[in-house]
Amino acid sequence: KLGATINLDDISHIDYLKNLIGELPKRMSCRFNPGGIFQVSNDIMDNPGEAKYGFTRQQMTQGFKKLKAYGVESFGIHAFLVSNAVTDDYYPQLASLLFKMAVELTEETGARIDFINLSGGIGIPYNPNQERANIYTIGEGVRLAFEKILVPAGLGHIAIYTELGRFMLGPNGCLVAKVLHIKDTYKKYVGLDACAANLMRPAMYGAYHHITVMGKEDEQYDHIYDITGGLCENNDKFAIDRRLPLIERGDLIVIHDTGAHGFSMGYNYNGKLRSAELLLKPDGSVELIRRAETPADYFATFDFMDRFKDI
Amino acid sequence: KLGATINLDDISHIDYLKNLIGELPKRMSCRFNPGGIFQVSNDIMDNPGEAKYGFTRQQMTQGFKKLKAYGVESFGIHAFLVSNAVTDDYYPQLASLLFKMAVELTEETGARIDFINLSGGIGIPYNPNQERANIYTIGEGVRLAFEKILVPAGLGHIAIYTELGRFMLGPNGCLVAKVLHIKDTYKKYVGLDACAANLMRPAMYGAYHHITVMGKEDEQYDHIYDITGGLCENNDKFAIDRRLPLIERGDLIVIHDTGAHGFSMGYNYNGKLRSAELLLKPDGSVELIRRAETPADYFATFDFMDRFKDI
Repeated sequence: KLGATINLDDISHIDYLKNLIGELPKRMSCRFNPGGIFQVSNDIMDNPGEAKYGFTRQQMTQGFKKLKAYGVESFGIHAFLVSNAVTDDYYPQLASLLFKMAVELTEETGARIDFINLSGGIGIPYNPNQERANIYTIGEGVRLAFEKILVPAGLGHIAIYTELGRFMLGPNGCLVAKVLHIKDTYKKYVGLDACAANLMRPAMYGAYHHITVMGKEDEQYDHIYDITGGLCENNDKFAIDRRLPLIERGDLIVIHDTGAHGFSMGYNYNGKLRSAELLLKPDGSVELIRRAETPADYFATFDFMDRFKDI
Repeated sequence: KLGATINLDDISHIDYLKNLIGELPKRMSCRFNPGGIFQVSNDIMDNPGEAKYGFTRQQMTQGFKKLKAYGVESFGIHAFLVSNAVTDDYYPQLASLLFKMAVELTEETGARIDFINLSGGIGIPYNPNQERANIYTIGEGVRLAFEKILVPAGLGHIAIYTELGRFMLGPNGCLVAKVLHIKDTYKKYVGLDACAANLMRPAMYGAYHHITVMGKEDEQYDHIYDITGGLCENNDKFAIDRRLPLIERGDLIVIHDTGAHGFSMGYNYNGKLRSAELLLKPDGSVELIRRAETPADYFATFDFMDRFKDI
């Protein structure tokens, strides 16, 4: 109905979907998980064998055969093995792996593979000192693998898809918060009007997000602070022992690279309301693209009873 | 206006609040943080020196003097040093610490202390094999400290407050989810219609929640599963390598002890909508106490623009 391509995560989904909708779409995709440990240049990148996602190699063959028997005519392969890789080697290495499998699957099953989705995984340097993925080098690496593996096998028609949400959106969003309090106890704390409800990555993963103080970008970074939100969780800290310029009440703190996994992972813990979102345009003007939540939003799912009707 | 007692987290809040509202309420409370490492019977319980909360000991004296000078007549002390303690020693030990400080603060500042809030921290056995806090033993321990420290100092009028949210609510809530898929790849996975959006503790803290299968409570626990939600995060697992009875599609999975830090920590990641909440009454009847979210709730903060008006 929407023209979307369904990407199955498990071999059991084939019959599940067929029972659900009767006839399968002509075009289907399966997600592959090679298992084991995924290494790039001898570094352990991630542990697909512990990941809940995808078909095993053997299931890919079984699955393609089954889908073909059910009338599917056009096949896709999807895999996501590593999150936020800042090396240029991951994507070409993943591409080689999937390209070789595409050749094998074509031979084994006769399925016509029309696309390979390399998905996400190309990271961004949350810390400016970090290595930075070079999208041109990466693209060239994928092209070389394509010409080395797919073209000689007569599979040069296969389209390459990507899902580079973090890479495209991450650096283009910021969380801007005001300093409400400076606290000096066993450490120096800066208390913001934002909290993990606006950006959960530091609390959930201990993730680094770069922080600057508006108008103080060029000052000496000679103070050490914990930058905190107001939740009743001690993990609600945007930064721990971060070297920053002198911060005063009223300063605007810019937490960088929140364009992905920022607002979308927000929650309402402690009754915190989600903030508005503003679009900064190239001409410097600003447009409201999402309004802030109100108490009425927070209590909306009580609207069938009288108890909260005055809110 | 509401008659609430304000509990200040930092000494800087005294002047902040005074500037904000003019005259301070007659009754005020301050949160204490002893710093360092908090030990109970030689076990390290937690690390208050790394916690963002509370006044230092010296600031408690300064703060009480300042509040008294600003006209406050009735004082309270609050502290929360350890989360989810299942030992019976924590609360009495905390009480002794705060009672001794109350005696000192009375002498040092002349402030009239009318209550001491031992706050939360009494835990629940998320794992049924875990030690279980005995609230009567704990209460008796606090009473002994009260009679040993406060009564001889002429402070027997002090009221004791608690904030035992987890202890009271945690065990009285369950997350009930249906098994949508059984998956067999490098491990055995059970896929639910619930996910970390309904209960974040396992994903965020790796927390244990006990799991049973409805109607299979007495069967052999001879299968090992990862119990997963459908989020695009591999940490979205309610249990890892959990020994359980044979689970089939359609089974109802009961995730226990979700009455605290469950729904209230829910989020909408991946566009997941929050579930309804049902109250099970002593007579076995069930009442809807919160309706499930709808797409209209999810898109509510776009209601000022036309783009999503048909949802």
